[in-house]
Amino acid sequence: MSGDIKKIVLAYSGGLDTSVILRWLQETYRCEVVTFTADIGQGEELEPARKKAEMMGVPASSIYIDDLREEFVRDFVFPMFRANTLYEGTYLLGTSIARPLIAKRQIEIAKEVGADAVAHGATGKGNDQVRFELGYYALKPDIKVIAPWRHWDLNSRTRLLDYAEQHQIPIAKDKRGEAPYSTDANLLHISYEGKALEDPWVEPDEDMFTRSVAPEKAPDTPTYVEVEFRHGDAVAVDGVALSPAQVLTKLNELGGQNGIGRLDLVENRFVGMKSRGVYETPGGTILLAAHRGIESITLDRGAMHLKDDVMPRYAELIYNGFWFSPERLAIQALIDNTQEQVNGTVRLKLFKGQASVVGRKSPNSLYRMDYVTFEADSVYNQKDAEGFIKLNALRLRLGAMAKGL
Amino acid sequence: MSGDIKKIVLAYSGGLDTSVILRWLQETYRCEVVTFTADIGQGEELEPARKKAEMMGVPASSIYIDDLREEFVRDFVFPMFRANTLYEGTYLLGTSIARPLIAKRQIEIAKEVGADAVAHGATGKGNDQVRFELGYYALKPDIKVIAPWRHWDLNSRTRLLDYAEQHQIPIAKDKRGEAPYSTDANLLHISYEGKALEDPWVEPDEDMFTRSVAPEKAPDTPTYVEVEFRHGDAVAVDGVALSPAQVLTKLNELGGQNGIGRLDLVENRFVGMKSRGVYETPGGTILLAAHRGIESITLDRGAMHLKDDVMPRYAELIYNGFWFSPERLAIQALIDNTQEQVNGTVRLKLFKGQASVVGRKSPNSLYRMDYVTFEADSVYNQKDAEGFIKLNALRLRLGAMAKGL
Amino acid sequence: MSGDIKKIVLAYSGGLDTSVILRWLQETYRCEVVTFTADIGQGEELEPARKKAEMMGVPASSIYIDDLREEFVRDFVFPMFRANTLYEGTYLLGTSIARPLIAKRQIEIAKEVGADAVAHGATGKGNDQVRFELGYYALKPDIKVIAPWRHWDLNSRTRLLDYAEQHQIPIAKDKRGEAPYSTDANLLHISYEGKALEDPWVEPDEDMFTRSVAPEKAPDTPTYVEVEFRHGDAVAVDGVALSPAQVLTKLNELGGQNGIGRLDLVENRFVGMKSRGVYETPGGTILLAAHRGIESITLDRGAMHLKDDVMPRYAELIYNGFWFSPERLAIQALIDNTQEQVNGTVRLKLFKGQASVVGRKSPNSLYRMDYVTFEADSVYNQKDAEGFIKLNALRLRLGAMAKGL
Amino acid sequence: MSGDIKKIVLAYSGGLDTSVILRWLQETYRCEVVTFTADIGQGEELEPARKKAEMMGVPASSIYIDDLREEFVRDFVFPMFRANTLYEGTYLLGTSIARPLIAKRQIEIAKEVGADAVAHGATGKGNDQVRFELGYYALKPDIKVIAPWRHWDLNSRTRLLDYAEQHQIPIAKDKRGEAPYSTDANLLHISYEGKALEDPWVEPDEDMFTRSVAPEKAPDTPTYVEVEFRHGDAVAVDGVALSPAQVLTKLNELGGQNGIGRLDLVENRFVGMKSRGVYETPGGTILLAAHRGIESITLDRGAMHLKDDVMPRYAELIYNGFWFSPERLAIQALIDNTQEQVNGTVRLKLFKGQASVVGRKSPNSLYRMDYVTFEADSVYNQKDAEGFIKLNALRLRLGAMAKGL
Repeated sequence: MSGDIKKIVLAYSGGLDTSVILRWLQETYRCEVVTFTADIGQGEELEPARKKAEMMGVPASSIYIDDLREEFVRDFVFPMFRANTLYEGTYLLGTSIARPLIAKRQIEIAKEVGADAVAHGATGKGNDQVRFELGYYALKPDIKVIAPWRHWDLNSRTRLLDYAEQHQIPIAKDKRGEAPYSTDANLLHISYEGKALEDPWVEPDEDMFTRSVAPEKAPDTPTYVEVEFRHGDAVAVDGVALSPAQVLTKLNELGGQNGIGRLDLVENRFVGMKSRGVYETPGGTILLAAHRGIESITLDRGAMHLKDDVMPRYAELIYNGFWFSPERLAIQALIDNTQEQVNGTVRLKLFKGQASVVGRKSPNSLYRMDYVTFEADSVYNQKDAEGFIKLNALRLRLGAMAKGL
Repeated sequence: MSGDIKKIVLAYSGGLDTSVILRWLQETYRCEVVTFTADIGQGEELEPARKKAEMMGVPASSIYIDDLREEFVRDFVFPMFRANTLYEGTYLLGTSIARPLIAKRQIEIAKEVGADAVAHGATGKGNDQVRFELGYYALKPDIKVIAPWRHWDLNSRTRLLDYAEQHQIPIAKDKRGEAPYSTDANLLHISYEGKALEDPWVEPDEDMFTRSVAPEKAPDTPTYVEVEFRHGDAVAVDGVALSPAQVLTKLNELGGQNGIGRLDLVENRFVGMKSRGVYETPGGTILLAAHRGIESITLDRGAMHLKDDVMPRYAELIYNGFWFSPERLAIQALIDNTQEQVNGTVRLKLFKGQASVVGRKSPNSLYRMDYVTFEADSVYNQKDAEGFIKLNALRLRLGAMAKGL
Repeated sequence: MSGDIKKIVLAYSGGLDTSVILRWLQETYRCEVVTFTADIGQGEELEPARKKAEMMGVPASSIYIDDLREEFVRDFVFPMFRANTLYEGTYLLGTSIARPLIAKRQIEIAKEVGADAVAHGATGKGNDQVRFELGYYALKPDIKVIAPWRHWDLNSRTRLLDYAEQHQIPIAKDKRGEAPYSTDANLLHISYEGKALEDPWVEPDEDMFTRSVAPEKAPDTPTYVEVEFRHGDAVAVDGVALSPAQVLTKLNELGGQNGIGRLDLVENRFVGMKSRGVYETPGGTILLAAHRGIESITLDRGAMHLKDDVMPRYAELIYNGFWFSPERLAIQALIDNTQEQVNGTVRLKLFKGQASVVGRKSPNSLYRMDYVTFEADSVYNQKDAEGFIKLNALRLRLGAMAKGL
Repeated sequence: MSGDIKKIVLAYSGGLDTSVILRWLQETYRCEVVTFTADIGQGEELEPARKKAEMMGVPASSIYIDDLREEFVRDFVFPMFRANTLYEGTYLLGTSIARPLIAKRQIEIAKEVGADAVAHGATGKGNDQVRFELGYYALKPDIKVIAPWRHWDLNSRTRLLDYAEQHQIPIAKDKRGEAPYSTDANLLHISYEGKALEDPWVEPDEDMFTRSVAPEKAPDTPTYVEVEFRHGDAVAVDGVALSPAQVLTKLNELGGQNGIGRLDLVENRFVGMKSRGVYETPGGTILLAAHRGIESITLDRGAMHLKDDVMPRYAELIYNGFWFSPERLAIQALIDNTQEQVNGTVRLKLFKGQASVVGRKSPNSLYRMDYVTFEADSVYNQKDAEGFIKLNALRLRLGAMAKGL
């Protein structure tokens, strides 16, 4: 094993697990390991990761720390929201959508530094390993992939801690015990999985949540917010033009204050089993409602229904890790093609866990009050309805007649 | 016109509009008009409709008044909810799903009484005319259909009132002025459309709502409810076995008390324009969340994703009035085929406008804690993930290689 | 009626029916009628149409005669073939795809000449009226549409001939009797419908066909042809670079000589009834096979299956006349997005009615002999298959276990 | 490895490869191996397989030889043909559809004899391993699966022959050399793959084909055949009632004589690479055309288009081996739901490679000559077309107006 690999780029968080992986890679492959740490809005300092990597012998020139927040929202989150994407009817894909970006940047670095391998810290039973690795292979088909969790023998918490101690890897105090759940965070969401959540009949503890107040504790009066869209993407909040990451940050703030975006579900993993996850997606929940709202007055019915029809498949592709697949790109072309006229402003009421659209306006509105009630001689003649119904009914009538009805 | 028709069955609410229609039909066609009034849970007394029909000369034997609430929920609402049906991502189809039942019963009566025509009070710009008439034609292809709103000259409020007065049709006091919105109600929902709602930027008045308290006024502590499912249909609430209509009634009560099920949207009508509608669907909103919840642990991924893929089309069929079409029946066969194992109980938290699933359990559960964390030698071997990913990646790699990546 | 219309652009073939329409429009509306005659490869001289229009009083400046063959193939036929489009599994949409082009050019002329109305000669029971008019309305929403066949009283052959005689409209000898079938022709196909074909149990007469020899009379030795593609469009035949219309012309010639492209079917019209049509599409039949052939080695599986999934809907949109709809454009964006790498050459055997792909090669080929049989250490490791199967099977196993299997 | 397995059921053809596997299993696992040989119409004697198994020490009571031809056609081929199933637009799935039946019977035998393992002779790069194993796991989730080709070291022809010789396994003379292609046969089709076919630019040799004469050598006059359907399944040929297997046998005979059903393609394997296959499916090719033909006059448009929309996915499921998955069963329920009225007779012309529908009739026909040409006062009023078009156009017009057209 050790002879083959020349240089490895590791997706490195600075936490205990990936620190152990860093050391394990160094020891096992006896080659240079480059660390890559990204800010995708997970809300953690990155400089400690740099320090830790340095401590473990990674030269400064081999430590990559990138702020990818704008790219994340602009090129991943927003395209996905153009499709009103929900996995299994409810999940906003907060984890799934971040993985391809990590994979992409990791491969870019591998090319820059001439690495022949990449490594990640995802486990062998989850979706993330698939998402990372499909990304790697799609972008650099000859890359070698190292997934330590599938290979090593450090599969229990005790062994991992032992290994850390033996190799002088610092262990944060709160990591010594077994965590009640594992989390993944970025600008779009935070997820909770595992131990304490494993019984799907049991409601999660209130103190688990970190991005939103409990609806019960949210303000007793509603907050109203206006989100402006251009070509299907949010470009301003309450009249203030914002960058993509700023939009999401602002909506997270408003959503979090109002207890919005919590989701508790059992989902189907790509690797074949069901798992229970709890999510907080405050800004994304508002954004989804707002985007549906602006489409409701600007998007043609045929285009909207087509989008609705392909959405579940698009969501499945993202969930399963096929962001860089030809079919995801093709569906994206379809989605994007529909968003030209999706411009305007949506007004939402945020209140104790709910984001409700209460107003929408647009310079490109297809809704006009006079169409709904217009006079007989305008674009709509009520008598046309008879012919419309008659011809739509024709095959039903012929079918009924053939059955002797 | 008058010579052709022998006997007409009118969908009769007892209200001003259909009373005017009743008289207009009697005068125009000079034939017997049979009235049919259904209780589908709209929450109005039906006996006044009988009295009014009698007053207008309809013989007792030609007055049909039916309680269709159980049939409505059992054969229309529940089959639709098995599909987690939402039109345009949000609308629970409360009006759409009631029309085929009215049409079906009306045709049954037409056959019983030997009528050759049916009539309804839906206007010429809406969806309901389509839903009624597609139902009529599908069930009795030689039926004659009379839609007075498309034909007569009573198209203004004033003319209608004048006609009513001229013909001694009693006008309720509150009907003299122009109503700020028109409504349609049944056990699943109540809808509001028209006048006061026509500007989609303006939030509806709080005093419009009738089936739910404002979230702001809902209790400050959450209500928990348990819904039990059998083969995909709700059969008990909080441990009490209930009939279909009783289930929905109970959930309406709980939902309404907690401000659940309000929806404000702009939708695409089948007849081609956009319109703004506001809906209250308290029980249905709970039921949808609960059904998704029970499916999340009992339904296979492949079946679930297939259902999700066909759902928007199924919703469109119902919205457009094609309940009795061969393709709706075929999709229903697909949906129903998946529900055998959809048994178990869902626990929901109802709080100030939101119904959130917080627990689910089932004797048929496909989720098991031990699968998610199971030991290496059980059904899941982490090393299998490598082969799984490698073969899923293969076409992406070959594609990348062909592009010289 | 006559007062409203100022100027009409008529889709004018020069034949009896549209000549009668021309005169009828002039008489009925007492306004200028501009004639528009297009060469879309129907195989008829256009100058007689000019003469006839002149004879009927249309000034030279109001006679439009356009050769649209290249535009037809480049912008309509080729985009459609990128999707491997078949309506109801078999029909190549030869008539459907020409109508939007006629409509588009007619509206362009209407704008040029300041006409407020357009007219066409399609009947009231067919699909073509829909295709024309949806095109008109989509491109110029305030256009007035005149469809004489739905309005006038010349609905029998005798009345039409009488009218022609009364108005000195020349009648070709072979038009005096009732034609055994009506036809529509363009560079992609010729269709036959009506009278002699109405019994779907009866095979059409051999002497009806005009674009292909009978398979029985085709050469006894096969013809081989090579078609070269670039980005999904055919650009050369047998090594000779050709324009779009030239490609189709050449393939029509080869197909016709080998009895290829005949189709006899009963199809479902958009207006609600079934009708029997017989078609000759010699070049198109070859082109479809060739395009599938080149895609088979250059298109990723995911993209191909996605295309296959949306194709029936795309075909339906074209058949129903929604070429200019937002949803057709969105699907086109999806289709076109997949064609970048669809380059290479396909070899076909043409023999007595059949076009069979027998070879394909491409600089972008995703097929490589060494992948199918490659060595153990290359991109494919047979042992990966086990993990692949195991994880694909996991949900099936869990499902079976839950059922006690 | 050897300690775990108690008894194995092997899918045994009697050929060299599975004979080597039989011996290898006996040696490796030192447990009883039960052989199962099925007649699914592959056209080979089964008694030699019995003899060979006996020779290799399998007791008579452990040799299963079953004639599954009727079950194959009735429960697998016919349900698939109800959907007009084609993989990637052209392939009739002859191999894919047989695998689940083998898997099902193998598991039945495993249950009967108390075996804990099954084995098959499919290689590690193909689709068949997936199809077998998904079937096994779906029907008996705790089964152990042995796929020798993925595990042993007999991966070259030489080694296999050496092993055979060392273990006294008789080798047919024609098996000593390397075969130019591998084949798989059953009552639906025969496939050819491998060596001589690996260059997709090269046409296969005429002498490879075994089930059909070359179109060039087929009779110079067409053969006409009539196929009768009941509920979507073929029940008679030329007026003679036949069992499912008899129908297919008869159509194979007629198709083979007329050079029908050859297909040469490059397809996308589920395991990720493209491969070239050549197929002969004479009867199936006729049956597909015939089934489309009978549906064309008996199936409602909505149902037909729905079927067309789901067909590619259904085909993919079968190709990928998901016959026993919940989603295949759900789609089957949809398909079967549409076939009630699919009754009647189709007439086809068979000529030098082509099967063309030339007539169809049905007691349930939805096509009636009088509908196409009916009088104004019948079910179709030409004036209805105007309203129909106007309302279909409405959203296009509003869209165009919003863009200022």
